[in-house]
Amino acid sequence: MKELQERILQDGKNLGNGILKVDSFVNHQVDPMLMDACGREFARRFANVGATKILTAEISGIAPALTTAIHLGLPVVYARKHKPITMPDQVYLTLAPSHTKGRMVELIISPEYLANDEKVLIIDDFLASGATILGLVRLAEASGSRVVGIGALIEKLFEGGRASLESLGVPVESLACITKLGEDGKIEFRD
Amino acid sequence: MKELQERILQDGKNLGNGILKVDSFVNHQVDPMLMDACGREFARRFANVGATKILTAEISGIAPALTTAIHLGLPVVYARKHKPITMPDQVYLTLAPSHTKGRMVELIISPEYLANDEKVLIIDDFLASGATILGLVRLAEASGSRVVGIGALIEKLFEGGRASLESLGVPVESLACITKLGEDGKIEFRD
Repeated sequence: MKELQERILQDGKNLGNGILKVDSFVNHQVDPMLMDACGREFARRFANVGATKILTAEISGIAPALTTAIHLGLPVVYARKHKPITMPDQVYLTLAPSHTKGRMVELIISPEYLANDEKVLIIDDFLASGATILGLVRLAEASGSRVVGIGALIEKLFEGGRASLESLGVPVESLACITKLGEDGKIEFRD
Repeated sequence: MKELQERILQDGKNLGNGILKVDSFVNHQVDPMLMDACGREFARRFANVGATKILTAEISGIAPALTTAIHLGLPVVYARKHKPITMPDQVYLTLAPSHTKGRMVELIISPEYLANDEKVLIIDDFLASGATILGLVRLAEASGSRVVGIGALIEKLFEGGRASLESLGVPVESLACITKLGEDGKIEFRD
């Protein structure tokens, strides 16, 4: 998606060590118009997968998942990293390594909102190693649901997450696909 | 706002001890159409306050703040509760008590995205004691910005947060205003 790619080139910061900072329009400050356009694009790409629910992980997945949900007219569930007091005792819980925290974090979903036979579209901000998305896949499967598609705003091709998702046999779409974050600060895209 | 009030009556759960569970459409699962309608309503109510930026707190504030931002065409910043590695060393930080965690949490904003002279509209999911919103007010003021309005999806009138915000002299709007969460499970609204 050209608009997102151009924005990454303009405002993204390659901090080195494979870290891309997009805090000015995705992760801390959010550009609502860009996020809405990304949601519209995900809705177009996943229009025919038959999704009944969108699934994401707090915190940074919420914005793109919500705008996608608005354009598809589907409810969105975000996995929590801490169990709130309003959640029942029995939950679906898995562990996933956090890139930015350097440790494992919990991903928790209440069975109230992810039931048998849902067709789940996973939307997140980044597809890097694929570990968070695979955590969401495990939660969906534990609930008896089926994943029908996976979308990420930004893919870091060089981290290999796509390969880890291949066995699922579902469409994996990223709106900006980065092939290299050079040590010179350069950001290179596929295409 | 009738639509939100009816949804609270239909799907909200009064768990006792002043806790209202709205996890099926606000806090864990999000109804995107309802959230979009709430954003449109906030945009209407705050159309004339001259806001230049919307401010909220992760996690549950993100959805209503984002839809409000879409309808007002303004960037939204969400205060982080943990400092990510992409954030600079110098930040604005304050502490606020967390209702659902029973302890103090940090609210952190990077000076990159909240600068001098912004006119800040604060949007959050709940206005209860007002402690989180007052934390956001402190962050805004620390940056040299000015708060021009405060909006919450759901206000618990009986927790007195509104009084704590009065001295700011800005419009405070809630879309559903609860006067009582009865011990019999009843939910009572103003009007």
